[in-house]
Amino acid sequence: MIKVGIVGATGYGGAELIRLLLSHPQAKITALAAKMDGKAAMISQLFPALERKIDINCADLNVDRMTEGADFLFLALPHKVSLEIVPQFLKADKKVVDFSADYRFDDPEVYQRWYGVKHNSKELLKEAVYGLPELYREEIRKARLIANPGCYPTGAVLGAAPLLLRGLVDSESIIVDSKTGVSGAGRWPGEGFNFCEIEENFKAYKIAGHRHQPEMEQELSKLVKKEVRISFTPHLVPVKRGILTTLYLNLKEEMKTEEVLRVFQDFYKDEPFIKILESDKFPEVKNVCGTNFCHIGCKVDERTGRVIVISTIDNLVKGASGQAVQNMNIMCGFDEKEGLEQVALIP
Amino acid sequence: MIKVGIVGATGYGGAELIRLLLSHPQAKITALAAKMDGKAAMISQLFPALERKIDINCADLNVDRMTEGADFLFLALPHKVSLEIVPQFLKADKKVVDFSADYRFDDPEVYQRWYGVKHNSKELLKEAVYGLPELYREEIRKARLIANPGCYPTGAVLGAAPLLLRGLVDSESIIVDSKTGVSGAGRWPGEGFNFCEIEENFKAYKIAGHRHQPEMEQELSKLVKKEVRISFTPHLVPVKRGILTTLYLNLKEEMKTEEVLRVFQDFYKDEPFIKILESDKFPEVKNVCGTNFCHIGCKVDERTGRVIVISTIDNLVKGASGQAVQNMNIMCGFDEKEGLEQVALIP
Amino acid sequence: MIKVGIVGATGYGGAELIRLLLSHPQAKITALAAKMDGKAAMISQLFPALERKIDINCADLNVDRMTEGADFLFLALPHKVSLEIVPQFLKADKKVVDFSADYRFDDPEVYQRWYGVKHNSKELLKEAVYGLPELYREEIRKARLIANPGCYPTGAVLGAAPLLLRGLVDSESIIVDSKTGVSGAGRWPGEGFNFCEIEENFKAYKIAGHRHQPEMEQELSKLVKKEVRISFTPHLVPVKRGILTTLYLNLKEEMKTEEVLRVFQDFYKDEPFIKILESDKFPEVKNVCGTNFCHIGCKVDERTGRVIVISTIDNLVKGASGQAVQNMNIMCGFDEKEGLEQVALIP
Amino acid sequence: MIKVGIVGATGYGGAELIRLLLSHPQAKITALAAKMDGKAAMISQLFPALERKIDINCADLNVDRMTEGADFLFLALPHKVSLEIVPQFLKADKKVVDFSADYRFDDPEVYQRWYGVKHNSKELLKEAVYGLPELYREEIRKARLIANPGCYPTGAVLGAAPLLLRGLVDSESIIVDSKTGVSGAGRWPGEGFNFCEIEENFKAYKIAGHRHQPEMEQELSKLVKKEVRISFTPHLVPVKRGILTTLYLNLKEEMKTEEVLRVFQDFYKDEPFIKILESDKFPEVKNVCGTNFCHIGCKVDERTGRVIVISTIDNLVKGASGQAVQNMNIMCGFDEKEGLEQVALIP
Repeated sequence: MIKVGIVGATGYGGAELIRLLLSHPQAKITALAAKMDGKAAMISQLFPALERKIDINCADLNVDRMTEGADFLFLALPHKVSLEIVPQFLKADKKVVDFSADYRFDDPEVYQRWYGVKHNSKELLKEAVYGLPELYREEIRKARLIANPGCYPTGAVLGAAPLLLRGLVDSESIIVDSKTGVSGAGRWPGEGFNFCEIEENFKAYKIAGHRHQPEMEQELSKLVKKEVRISFTPHLVPVKRGILTTLYLNLKEEMKTEEVLRVFQDFYKDEPFIKILESDKFPEVKNVCGTNFCHIGCKVDERTGRVIVISTIDNLVKGASGQAVQNMNIMCGFDEKEGLEQVALIP
Repeated sequence: MIKVGIVGATGYGGAELIRLLLSHPQAKITALAAKMDGKAAMISQLFPALERKIDINCADLNVDRMTEGADFLFLALPHKVSLEIVPQFLKADKKVVDFSADYRFDDPEVYQRWYGVKHNSKELLKEAVYGLPELYREEIRKARLIANPGCYPTGAVLGAAPLLLRGLVDSESIIVDSKTGVSGAGRWPGEGFNFCEIEENFKAYKIAGHRHQPEMEQELSKLVKKEVRISFTPHLVPVKRGILTTLYLNLKEEMKTEEVLRVFQDFYKDEPFIKILESDKFPEVKNVCGTNFCHIGCKVDERTGRVIVISTIDNLVKGASGQAVQNMNIMCGFDEKEGLEQVALIP
Repeated sequence: MIKVGIVGATGYGGAELIRLLLSHPQAKITALAAKMDGKAAMISQLFPALERKIDINCADLNVDRMTEGADFLFLALPHKVSLEIVPQFLKADKKVVDFSADYRFDDPEVYQRWYGVKHNSKELLKEAVYGLPELYREEIRKARLIANPGCYPTGAVLGAAPLLLRGLVDSESIIVDSKTGVSGAGRWPGEGFNFCEIEENFKAYKIAGHRHQPEMEQELSKLVKKEVRISFTPHLVPVKRGILTTLYLNLKEEMKTEEVLRVFQDFYKDEPFIKILESDKFPEVKNVCGTNFCHIGCKVDERTGRVIVISTIDNLVKGASGQAVQNMNIMCGFDEKEGLEQVALIP
Repeated sequence: MIKVGIVGATGYGGAELIRLLLSHPQAKITALAAKMDGKAAMISQLFPALERKIDINCADLNVDRMTEGADFLFLALPHKVSLEIVPQFLKADKKVVDFSADYRFDDPEVYQRWYGVKHNSKELLKEAVYGLPELYREEIRKARLIANPGCYPTGAVLGAAPLLLRGLVDSESIIVDSKTGVSGAGRWPGEGFNFCEIEENFKAYKIAGHRHQPEMEQELSKLVKKEVRISFTPHLVPVKRGILTTLYLNLKEEMKTEEVLRVFQDFYKDEPFIKILESDKFPEVKNVCGTNFCHIGCKVDERTGRVIVISTIDNLVKGASGQAVQNMNIMCGFDEKEGLEQVALIP
């Protein structure tokens, strides 16, 4: 049984960690911190859904309190804040999964260009492992510090990686058209996210300018050892949870849908959280909602020589907290599925 | 480990039973039946959310197949159909939880008046136990046949029972104003339930004429051993799950909100699935969604001598399948919370 | 053609006024003000839906600018702000429809008790007319200052007035159970109204303590010249627009549903915006959405001697801006329906 | 004043025609038909939202009754049904706008391949004008028979045409990723469209196999007089109305976003219903909902040499009934905006 601390426990990522870990037989939440402005409170007071499930105090962050109370730390913090805190936890010999982008980039200049902050720790940047188990399971197993992937990159990289790695598609003309639910914007998303502005509406935003684009390109480029170039368009859809990613990839040679599906099935054959749909079936967000699954389907458009790949995840689970727990399980030698056995609600 | 069979596995009630039982350590789903028109199929083909979780066949109902395959049966069937099937399962020495109204009424004429069918088995009607554990736990423990309560009656009876039983409110002027999500209408709800007709709309329906009203009155009258009369107005709200019931009860004597809350706390103090909110807090549907909890809050309106009680449940869990599992747990001597430890999604 | 000014043009009430007035043949919007923090802007820049429809500047409030630019003023401001501004417009000989509660109460002490502010102008309070045309059309015709009714009171008073006035129901045991869409909370509703907190959720709030309760009681008491006492429970439902009010009224004598409907039909027979539904039909929010209509249906519950009345309005139209335009039409001698001929969207 | 008949009045397209025409000063609805199974009814009985607005009878289709009662006919019928009825109306010297695909294709074999029916009237196919006013206004002016465009093609063609016509983008690598609201599936959409299956869900469907793809390709190919090839992926989003189309087009030469926008502004400069957004602003569905507008924005992704174009329409207005009214206005010499001055609801 490991003792787990969560920093940033009052946001949606933090709450989702708590929900998942409550069903984990080998992890126990022992310390919670968040921006509380001096007003510490029971977490079940803040989230009535947690009443009778967990009853511990959530206070402003005090690193000493957290290192004393926990062996394993999840940091669900805004970008830039982790830069200061992560080194302190590592120094205290803790293992850390960090949700922010602060340790995701290999190149500190890419980080600085997209996040506007100079990186202060190139060593940790080098040490941190990008926490996508389907690609980096062995590195994760040995890591002290995991950079938990962004939600969009998770869905996009899982959908493109097998085809790129097998050399079946062109790497410079990839299009990623993603649709996300609203919880990705967090619990305090600011003006423009009130119910009346979102309901019965949808839109594209940050076209060709979203920070998750360089993250996707880095990961896929590393994979194929040459430059991968992506056009990325995120859209906001009026649901709470879920990301559906539609990828357009140009096939180098003619292939049938079934052949492409076989590549996916083969690539992910041992993965506990990847499900490849059969021919003519396509993923729907509802089937992964609340779960750590990624569903993938595809269709070859023979007339244009393209394959269209669809992947769906729950942005708060496989796109954030579930993936974080999966990383923890690998780092701690637990069964990878512990705490992640939830079934999606029907309906 | 008991072997569980579900008849009506393809409706929302059946699917929810499967979801809940998948996390039950002492029950194993071994047989599924539903109206399949001869086209048996794997349940995970019908509900992609169940893939990798359960992989058994669902075929048209054959009573022999079910009695051979299962020891405990859940019947999630339309009203009237159970009348024919329940006796066969009982004869085969199985225990049954029936979701329909067929065995809920003490008086067969009330059943006939509201459901339009003559009851053919007054003995079973007498034997069947109304499956509301908070009121009938001991009877449930010994029962072979449980009539699982209706969704609206569950929320209303739990909200009214303590005050009526303590003699604190008038029994003839109770008003029950309920608001339900759409899943209560089932998976094939017929015209008028398509998305475009429900979204951004809400309405009252079957005012003073809904079949759950005599069920509420029967249960509360039995409790206080005199006639309880209720005005019941159900409303349809554009959410998938959840019932919020607003009860208006006339206090016989002046009471403070805190005093009323104490009555509730006392009455439900050992109940695993009832949560009484503190003063000035009121239940929200989201906090019970996906769970077997009933949250109850109240406020005394001193100017009018009324107490307004609010209860919330998930109509598919505490209002149907969760309550059914709770009944099974009691009947089988399991811990009452087994299979029912889910936490509501945040958000 | 009158020149119309709107103060508070950037809120939902202001935007709705603009939408309605754009189709008004005798009114022209000539001046707009709102809290702009010095950053005046074209209104179509703020609301892209208004592009190509109206192209005038919206700046911080300057009373002189507004009085020069407009003859008739709508004030869609928060409570308490109007107290200072209304007198200035009246002094400049303008007619005013005020959306706030500042001039709704006959008794300044009731205002102070519920709104926490001492009223500074009892004369204007006496002069102001409560702008519910169905009850006060003649007074409105002659008024300089209209206190536009609250959204909940509009639906509740219209549903209760005919039966109370005819002496058919008890005046001291009325229950008003209302369900509202989210736009009633305004365009900047504060934390807790973000999409993820509202979607797939509903709840009661401010039970027996909402400020619209004394407003309902005042209006109905005035009508019947004795004290009317109401228990009022507002609920929040995940739609953008619409209020459905369920009223429970105790009949003094036995009546049939048809008889009660006839009372309504008779009372509202010349009303352009009231529609009484026939027996066994009940109002739905979608049918009044975007329109100035109030739909009313009812059902007598003979077993309990109660009549349940349902009324629906669009909280932003008949519950705010549409009613304001209707008042303007009466004050200016226009056809009462001008600018208010919109048809609800299907679906 | 022309007399207008609507065949298929009880579907969403028919209802929307009624809503729009009610505000048209030169058109009067005089005859309605639909599949009524012998049970003719007032249209306001079928759509309570139309009460007090229009009060005419809707009966099963009788061509003679319609030709006697109306001069101009809208046919909002399923595909294949129009093939039999349109010739009868033309023979009776009526003008017709047909909503189906029956007269949209230049090549009867394309029609047969995608709709499964042999076309029986190549002459009418030749005569019919594709009713997209922005491209075919002059032909529409002289036409007897308009094939009203599909909803997806309207959004896609309007977004691609200017760039293709100016020869700025490659014609063989176009990607159209569309997201639609649910009303596009009609009022009786069949299983799978009930609220619980759609809410909090989204998905792609008919990938590289939707019937609107050959329609887009035909229209764009005709325009540039060479083959245009499109990958088309439609998605279903949980809103009632609206289509957002994301187009990916490969620029032949480097261009700035502003330069591309200028091409759009120039091309559509006299169009009453096209609005080009300024740089860094992107269309949202809510701003066109209920209106005949098409909003277009774009962004050049300089790294990949692509321009991403976003267009939004209301599928029931510019994507169906509004465009039909616009066509009628052109055919009848009315101001093109008559009946189409609605403003989108805020919020």
